[in-house]
Amino acid sequence: MVAPKEFIDEAIAEIEGQIGDANAVIALSGGVDSSVAAALAYEAIGERLTPVYVDTGLMRKGETEGIEETFSYMESLRVVDAEERFLDALSDVTDPEEKRAVIGEAFIREFEREAKEADADYLVQGTIYPDRIESEGGIKSHHNVGGLPERIDFEGIVEPVRDLYKDEVREVARELGLEEIVSERMPFPGPGLAVRVVGEVTREKLVVAREATHVVEDELEEYDPWQALAAVIGKATGVKGDNRVHGWVVAVRSVESRDGMTARAQELDWETLQRIQSRITGENDNVARVVYDVTHKPPATIEYE
Amino acid sequence: MVAPKEFIDEAIAEIEGQIGDANAVIALSGGVDSSVAAALAYEAIGERLTPVYVDTGLMRKGETEGIEETFSYMESLRVVDAEERFLDALSDVTDPEEKRAVIGEAFIREFEREAKEADADYLVQGTIYPDRIESEGGIKSHHNVGGLPERIDFEGIVEPVRDLYKDEVREVARELGLEEIVSERMPFPGPGLAVRVVGEVTREKLVVAREATHVVEDELEEYDPWQALAAVIGKATGVKGDNRVHGWVVAVRSVESRDGMTARAQELDWETLQRIQSRITGENDNVARVVYDVTHKPPATIEYE
Repeated sequence: MVAPKEFIDEAIAEIEGQIGDANAVIALSGGVDSSVAAALAYEAIGERLTPVYVDTGLMRKGETEGIEETFSYMESLRVVDAEERFLDALSDVTDPEEKRAVIGEAFIREFEREAKEADADYLVQGTIYPDRIESEGGIKSHHNVGGLPERIDFEGIVEPVRDLYKDEVREVARELGLEEIVSERMPFPGPGLAVRVVGEVTREKLVVAREATHVVEDELEEYDPWQALAAVIGKATGVKGDNRVHGWVVAVRSVESRDGMTARAQELDWETLQRIQSRITGENDNVARVVYDVTHKPPATIEYE
Repeated sequence: MVAPKEFIDEAIAEIEGQIGDANAVIALSGGVDSSVAAALAYEAIGERLTPVYVDTGLMRKGETEGIEETFSYMESLRVVDAEERFLDALSDVTDPEEKRAVIGEAFIREFEREAKEADADYLVQGTIYPDRIESEGGIKSHHNVGGLPERIDFEGIVEPVRDLYKDEVREVARELGLEEIVSERMPFPGPGLAVRVVGEVTREKLVVAREATHVVEDELEEYDPWQALAAVIGKATGVKGDNRVHGWVVAVRSVESRDGMTARAQELDWETLQRIQSRITGENDNVARVVYDVTHKPPATIEYE
């Protein structure tokens, strides 16, 4: 990549050239990629860009608030509360691929409505280089809510960060002056917490995954992981008082990586692991166990589904 | 406890007094408790004791061979190959409690036949002190294949180690000169590997649990844990070549404890954890992840079901 400042100038000029006087939409996921793409496009075409943030109910703690704050300078920002509709659509769905399909479908439904309302001819996307490589191999499906272009008939797709790696996107984010909660936040999958609750998506499991992910991001900040997360991966026995109970198993994962395509499980201090397990089991009465994932990618993926 | 030698003399005398000239049976689980009880009873009544070892197909690697070797001096030893019958009975059973019930039932069926054949009036059991406390609270069901006495009408139950803690049982085992594979082997639950495969019991999962448990016991010997184990706890995504696959999640657990009633997750070196995960994923093509359990008891139990 050229220097961030130079990249930004070139990207803005390119976007202007592509979109001209038309309108455009972008789906904000809460992550750095789509945030940078949105900020660049906004520099290029101003309020003719409608950034759409769909709160699916599958977001991390504070994510919606972070987006509202970061992009409060865009009057065209649309924040859609779609939690009920997503959870309804997901009820009884257990297969990981079907889950992603249902989420993709529900997302497109929300986004289509907003895109029509914005009278948008162009779609801006935060696709980065590893996304393009990985979707060719079928490793990630819908991590970037793919499938949008096939469903909605846009005049063109604009992907201003398509040749960048994640760390380069972060450099651009810093140069653009985006809030740290956006520029420095760990990667988060498109289907959100839904892929951090193995099996059926329920409110109970989402609450555990959200709180546990918050604990993990909080406790592991000093380790500066590429990505750290918590997932509800099943049930196992626990003991409460003199009785046997069944509780959730929460997996904690923290990896080092350059681009997400390969990754190494991160060595954590025992004290850190103990603080994490004690906070997670202490704050969530229905969690029986906390386990730490010691597997690299490959053979594991970073996320659990 | 009094000194091991003194305990042994007293126990033998007590068993003689209880059983007199009658016959007795004992179910050998492969563990130290029932092995010590059997060795004591054999000292007391000789070949009038029939030790019955049922190979359920849910045993650890080398367990059956260890028992055959250790007790080869008892001509009355019965080793029953019941793997097919257990796996048939367990097919489609997913509920942990039902699993235990099915195993208990299948076990009793095997044992009843052997007890009748041995014309036994007395049942010798390796119940130890924590078993008695825990079964009152309902924490362990069938860890010692309870329910035997209610089903088979014995004249009396003989429990020579009923007042001992596990470490005291081991002292007695050493004094009795039992093989190390019996005296020093880690505790293993009554229902065997069935409670180390969460959900339905299948041959595929049992193979993974057996091999992984072997790796864990082998690699962690130097840590001298109270108990160390591996369990197949679910499925998650992995990556093979350029493709996404689904593979088993193997949980590794190693705890320190005095009596099994409470326990602490053991701190392991990162190198050890890496060696374990690399052996388990390397030897089992269908394992996507290895996680290490960092939870104490309570709130977790030692085993997973």
